[in-house]
Amino acid sequence: MTIETLEAPTTEPAIDPSDPVLDTGFATEMVRQVRAIDPYGTYDDLSAAEVLEPYVLTKEKKREIPIVGDPDEIVIARIQAFYNAIAVMIEQECRLRAVPLLHLTHEGFGRVLITVGKLVVVDRSLRDVHRFGFASLSRMKDEGDKLLSVALELIGEHSRVAGL
Amino acid sequence: MTIETLEAPTTEPAIDPSDPVLDTGFATEMVRQVRAIDPYGTYDDLSAAEVLEPYVLTKEKKREIPIVGDPDEIVIARIQAFYNAIAVMIEQECRLRAVPLLHLTHEGFGRVLITVGKLVVVDRSLRDVHRFGFASLSRMKDEGDKLLSVALELIGEHSRVAGL
Repeated sequence: MTIETLEAPTTEPAIDPSDPVLDTGFATEMVRQVRAIDPYGTYDDLSAAEVLEPYVLTKEKKREIPIVGDPDEIVIARIQAFYNAIAVMIEQECRLRAVPLLHLTHEGFGRVLITVGKLVVVDRSLRDVHRFGFASLSRMKDEGDKLLSVALELIGEHSRVAGL
Repeated sequence: MTIETLEAPTTEPAIDPSDPVLDTGFATEMVRQVRAIDPYGTYDDLSAAEVLEPYVLTKEKKREIPIVGDPDEIVIARIQAFYNAIAVMIEQECRLRAVPLLHLTHEGFGRVLITVGKLVVVDRSLRDVHRFGFASLSRMKDEGDKLLSVALELIGEHSRVAGL
């Protein structure tokens, strides 16, 4: 089964298969999450770089996406996988359950929360959801690392609430 | 414009228009919330008892709803209005912003959160969303009061996190 997607790179792939970022825990978890939400095995034969390729929106790729648009299921699943990966990494660090919650309106606005116990450790407004993506793979990892470190700091400061 | 809804009572109304619960702050806020999500003014000519009637699912009314079903937009809006009302009452009591977040799957499962600052003050799993309702008006008020008092207790105990 082959699927033609809008995300198929029209130019050079944005992720270099030898990029060391692909070997980090974050990228490994991201790949696992994307494969987890791929019920038809569409990605089975793809490499890690190929699986993560749609997350990288270079300026050229971004220009091809209309400014206004409804987020489709693939984009929503992609956002879900990103925040699922963050939640898993939070769990691995703090050994407490981290639960992501993504709410999107039809217009592509939304909010994503990750909670640990009764503590909100990630709280983001989303907009232009149909253009979700990062300038490069390492930018995506930076973003993940930032969310993770803010979350862990909050959990450290408010461990009682996180343990509720 | 008239709308024929499944919710139109097929038997006697379940809410007595002289029920003193209708004069409580909770019922007043509920009516305000339902009217707020009624863009076409369908409810303009309805009394408070009539506006809240769909929230009361007596045993007879519940029997008429299939056990398995997809939640329609009206039911989702109704659940949203209920938790919006709780959030407004939390705000009124603690003078901090309370934000509800409702996430539903197509199958009628879901989760609702209300956050105050970085504190989760309401966190509920939802199921059988298409059968959302209460045995009586006073049961609905009890439920609202319970959610409110638990939320306020959490805010009191963890005021620093609620103030973040």
